[in-house]
Amino acid sequence: MRVVLAAGGTETALIDGISAAGATPELMSHTPPADAEIVAYGEPIAAPVTPVSPSGCPTPAAVTRAVREVVGFDLTVLDAGLPEETAAPTVSLEAASGADVRSAVAVPDAAAIYDRAREFGASLPDDEILIGETIPGGTTTALGVLTALGEPADVSSSLPTNPLERKRAVVEEALAASDLAAGDCADEPLEAIRQVGDPVQAAAMGVATGALEAGLEVTLAGGTQMATVAALLRRSGVDAELSIATTSFVADERGGSLGETCFRLNCELTVTDPGFDEGDHVAMARYCAGEAKEGVAMGGALSLVPDDELPVVREHLVTVCDRLGIEATGGDEAIPGTGDEPTHGS
Amino acid sequence: MRVVLAAGGTETALIDGISAAGATPELMSHTPPADAEIVAYGEPIAAPVTPVSPSGCPTPAAVTRAVREVVGFDLTVLDAGLPEETAAPTVSLEAASGADVRSAVAVPDAAAIYDRAREFGASLPDDEILIGETIPGGTTTALGVLTALGEPADVSSSLPTNPLERKRAVVEEALAASDLAAGDCADEPLEAIRQVGDPVQAAAMGVATGALEAGLEVTLAGGTQMATVAALLRRSGVDAELSIATTSFVADERGGSLGETCFRLNCELTVTDPGFDEGDHVAMARYCAGEAKEGVAMGGALSLVPDDELPVVREHLVTVCDRLGIEATGGDEAIPGTGDEPTHGS
Repeated sequence: MRVVLAAGGTETALIDGISAAGATPELMSHTPPADAEIVAYGEPIAAPVTPVSPSGCPTPAAVTRAVREVVGFDLTVLDAGLPEETAAPTVSLEAASGADVRSAVAVPDAAAIYDRAREFGASLPDDEILIGETIPGGTTTALGVLTALGEPADVSSSLPTNPLERKRAVVEEALAASDLAAGDCADEPLEAIRQVGDPVQAAAMGVATGALEAGLEVTLAGGTQMATVAALLRRSGVDAELSIATTSFVADERGGSLGETCFRLNCELTVTDPGFDEGDHVAMARYCAGEAKEGVAMGGALSLVPDDELPVVREHLVTVCDRLGIEATGGDEAIPGTGDEPTHGS
Repeated sequence: MRVVLAAGGTETALIDGISAAGATPELMSHTPPADAEIVAYGEPIAAPVTPVSPSGCPTPAAVTRAVREVVGFDLTVLDAGLPEETAAPTVSLEAASGADVRSAVAVPDAAAIYDRAREFGASLPDDEILIGETIPGGTTTALGVLTALGEPADVSSSLPTNPLERKRAVVEEALAASDLAAGDCADEPLEAIRQVGDPVQAAAMGVATGALEAGLEVTLAGGTQMATVAALLRRSGVDAELSIATTSFVADERGGSLGETCFRLNCELTVTDPGFDEGDHVAMARYCAGEAKEGVAMGGALSLVPDDELPVVREHLVTVCDRLGIEATGGDEAIPGTGDEPTHGS
């Protein structure tokens, strides 16, 4: 089993109040490089940040790494426009980081990224792959693309309180800047990405397309953002079997709407509850309180774990958190669900 | 356990009669990308060649991959000047491929490559690493560096009959072009690389230095070329414990001289015989006949295998060969040791 992690950036993440994936906007561009290093090596080894929220919630990369230590999947990180260097080994898609969606064109090279990723996906020797993402601001670009496609636009957040109105306002501005109305890109998924998306969407869509063409089983590992990739794939005419695997944190927030989305997109849905309520660690408590929820293929990775091994994954998560400098009872004493959330929030 | 594979190129490989690492000079530049893909994925997935000699001897990458399938080591490929793209994930050292050693300067950015590799090596979270190489023409650049350092210059070959006189003539020309006499770089190892070496040497030396400084155990996985890296390290003042792990094929060709080299460089030597004489496959027969011998961390990888698992490695090698299109009884019917060897030969 291989996890393909598409990692990149978009300047959309720098818009105030959009993403929790980094303590400050300046540091946020180091989150995807750090995420890649955490899954590859177990900790950031060159990235100058450890993506942990002010309240002690670690990046989902920590969970994905914990799963990797238990089930041992292969990893390929795609450089789909990383805003900063990473010491994780990467396959380059010669992608630049995306522009702010409120500019005229967000991903000028969307088609080229898609083509390279598709070729890569078609060449993989595996029987099945999971595709995940790490890109701060990715739920806002997901909302942009869903709106441009004319899909129901309902996205998740890495913050306990979803700044959805803020995201909608950004997307309205983005569509206006691209001279688009909702649904204008219904049959042009790559154009939707080019106008109001991000380079990671082009990469994930390309890898999935190539892999499906080559007969691999493909699971999109994530929530809102990967469901958006599913929509892009269906709009581009891909009708192969497709699965989405996500966490119970996303499923709980979305209620029945995630299932409806998957039904509409003809995708099988797998939801995994990592049992963090049984863990005695601030990192798990923060996830239970609704922070982070998903990302870096977390839900897909968890779907690989047999039920009786989930406690082992939680043990590994504790040691990963140790390496990330998160103490079991650390954090800023934020009380779950009281709105005492960090300033930035994908 | 992590294997760090420094992969790169040098135009020295294009000199007629120097390297066996590729059927033609044009295809040879694809050998390091293909080697990296074979260890990463089990087969070349984007590289347009499968490095197999005309007589059916596969690249040592096939053996390293077979070991990986049995013992499951982590892999990090360093792009230390790859002449062509690879679909294997790589950590870039921003290195260019090396020039022909017969030009005035072979590796203009040797010091910068070394610095980046040293930083990378120091950041690794592992307890121990193996460092290997893939670079066609690498034994000739090894001879160049050993000569410039004033070390006894005795190198191996990927051909059954070592074109040593050819290599010596090239190195003489290389030293003259750099206005150097033997031993002129005795205390300037990076200068030796810059003048008559290759970028992979700078990368391997840098990673080893950084890793040793960070307290990791370091094994240089290879024969002639990695012994040259050991010499570079000792000349740069590194006096930490250092091991060399190689194959019985190199040890058999070198007789007692390899042991002497290791003694002189204060390196522990591990030699592993993969028992290919017990295997019934043309790939193993070719190794027993003296082809390829070592490379792509083969000897170091084999040193990780418990004796009673070597038969399992040989079984995996057969399936790797299947994927590479090498039939058990294939090849051009060359008779071992009769001089019926391929045209090109590191």
